[in-house]
Amino acid sequence: MTAAKLLSSCRIRSTPYKRKVEALGVSGYSVVNHTILPKGFGRSIEEDYWHLRQHVQLWDVGCQRQVELRGPDAARLAQLMTPRDLSAAEVGHCLYAPMIDDNGGMLNDPVILKLGDNHFWFSIADADMLLWAKGLALGMGLEVQIEEPDVWPMAVQGPKSDDLMAAVFGETVRAIGFFRFRMLQFHGHPMLVARSGYSKQGGFEIYLDNSVLAEPLWDALWQAGEDFNVAPGCPNLIERIEGGLLSYGNEMTRANNPVECGLEGYCQLDGSVSYIGLQALQRISEEGAQQCIKGVLFDGDRCPACSRPWKVKVNNFTVGQITSAIWSPRFNTNIALGMIKKAYSIAATKVEVECEDGSIRGGEICNLPMTA
Amino acid sequence: MTAAKLLSSCRIRSTPYKRKVEALGVSGYSVVNHTILPKGFGRSIEEDYWHLRQHVQLWDVGCQRQVELRGPDAARLAQLMTPRDLSAAEVGHCLYAPMIDDNGGMLNDPVILKLGDNHFWFSIADADMLLWAKGLALGMGLEVQIEEPDVWPMAVQGPKSDDLMAAVFGETVRAIGFFRFRMLQFHGHPMLVARSGYSKQGGFEIYLDNSVLAEPLWDALWQAGEDFNVAPGCPNLIERIEGGLLSYGNEMTRANNPVECGLEGYCQLDGSVSYIGLQALQRISEEGAQQCIKGVLFDGDRCPACSRPWKVKVNNFTVGQITSAIWSPRFNTNIALGMIKKAYSIAATKVEVECEDGSIRGGEICNLPMTA
Repeated sequence: MTAAKLLSSCRIRSTPYKRKVEALGVSGYSVVNHTILPKGFGRSIEEDYWHLRQHVQLWDVGCQRQVELRGPDAARLAQLMTPRDLSAAEVGHCLYAPMIDDNGGMLNDPVILKLGDNHFWFSIADADMLLWAKGLALGMGLEVQIEEPDVWPMAVQGPKSDDLMAAVFGETVRAIGFFRFRMLQFHGHPMLVARSGYSKQGGFEIYLDNSVLAEPLWDALWQAGEDFNVAPGCPNLIERIEGGLLSYGNEMTRANNPVECGLEGYCQLDGSVSYIGLQALQRISEEGAQQCIKGVLFDGDRCPACSRPWKVKVNNFTVGQITSAIWSPRFNTNIALGMIKKAYSIAATKVEVECEDGSIRGGEICNLPMTA
Repeated sequence: MTAAKLLSSCRIRSTPYKRKVEALGVSGYSVVNHTILPKGFGRSIEEDYWHLRQHVQLWDVGCQRQVELRGPDAARLAQLMTPRDLSAAEVGHCLYAPMIDDNGGMLNDPVILKLGDNHFWFSIADADMLLWAKGLALGMGLEVQIEEPDVWPMAVQGPKSDDLMAAVFGETVRAIGFFRFRMLQFHGHPMLVARSGYSKQGGFEIYLDNSVLAEPLWDALWQAGEDFNVAPGCPNLIERIEGGLLSYGNEMTRANNPVECGLEGYCQLDGSVSYIGLQALQRISEEGAQQCIKGVLFDGDRCPACSRPWKVKVNNFTVGQITSAIWSPRFNTNIALGMIKKAYSIAATKVEVECEDGSIRGGEICNLPMTA
């Protein structure tokens, strides 16, 4: 499958950065939220990985679509959709928040941006949460407008992100706290800039709300980036797995609950906050998770891409599955994220991994994030 | 973009036919409902087109996911979700049905299969209608189970479909009416077989509900197909545009209503049926559509793939947009589907098409389906 092309259509939407990433030689795409996600620029994932850890990259993450809630019942609906207690959130806060259904099943894990007391963006992973929000609002008769605004995030990630962003947006960016946002000026246009992003290397996400400015914004960052060895990039699978960053649709689906995903810390379970799935989640929490997401290190040559779940076994007994895997040049072994039965989830537990190339590799469980 | 690879991940789901289509040399994919859609087998789209019109093809359309409604309120929820009157539908019927929101905006255009009085499958185009259904049901307190069953449709399309299907399922398939289904036996397992599919060349869709049988089913059809010049295939863009078959996400989105999509005939507007969006749709119908979906024929060499909407102009004034376009070897011109302002939508109206390669082509409006 890695050798097959992605066919063009309007249905799979372009981003306003597309001409820029094409000019920089984008070599692969994924599709998220009916939108292209550039996933490679002709260099190896390992080269991208080392670069991301040392310098700074521009990522076209326009596929991180926003579900906007606005109106008298916006705050009420936002809280109904997540177990995370939003009551103390202030305007300017970004909140990583699981979203669950009535059974406690994971529907998404967006970053929620509080723009006003009754104004929120849910910056979503790959699922049509707008339909969920609209269905709930209509069914419950809530007074809230739910739209996908014309917002196209791009990310600046890597240890030199502060220097690059300061060169374009001014020194004030350095004062933005982690998971906080500010409105900064670009070409006379206010732009939402958050200290966040889908890596552990530091950086920012710019929530561009005017696609006409996409290319000027990209160009300004690219030109200022010459001093910082800037490169185009994308969420890096090696860095993501090492850092234990989950991917909705990979490590977790509607079949999983936030407790087994290690997200219980984001869930208010004492009943002080009312949301969909509260009763189910309280029960799940009381009973305790039967499985949990762990890291797996495993032997052998560079493993193939993980395009379907791989079984993890102990003594020929299936104890879990791996859903993301790759070779780590830093740990000098294959690394993976997987959902593992509790009894086998202790670090250093020996396992076998059944790769989709037919190979069976010896491995062991490890904690997340992975450390040398 | 056509040259870039689709990157593998578990999030973009495989189908149980994947090994078969890979063995047959699949060369491209699209992504629908978080699932791969094989889109080419090394031959040109034109070769596939002629073959589809003359012989028979096997299509892996496992991406046509089912949203199953089951339980005491299933029929009520099904009717709430579509303007099409379902009251006369019988078990064994397939119904093409627009789905709309409270503003009359198109959410999807599934085929609804009535499996029982309170048991439906919505065979959906590319959007997470399960979340819409669940949101509504939860918000309204309906008693209905909503799931995505383990069902993986494959299609047999082309004029020799009856002969091929009869060879595998028996002569009884010939008696299945258009948009009707029956349960037929395969390897001792009952299988839902419908006379339907995303082409105008005739054929069937098999709603395989046991993925273990995917390869035996594919093999049985392939082997019996040797007598009928069988080939692997996929929804063919030339055939689809000529036939005027719409594609959700391309020709229509939530910004469009069923009236302008030419689907008013599927909408019960007299108030005898209650559904979400009824009032909005009645108002839209009374006011009349401001635009409508039409065919466009246009000049010049083979046009590029349409990866973003192309403007259609008259006297330098934008009168619509094209969202699907390709060269037709039968009509010996470029053909397209587009949304055109009413005043300019009469067949033979002269227009100009702005292709994404920068070329401006002369063209004219035509009716659908296109006829020589």
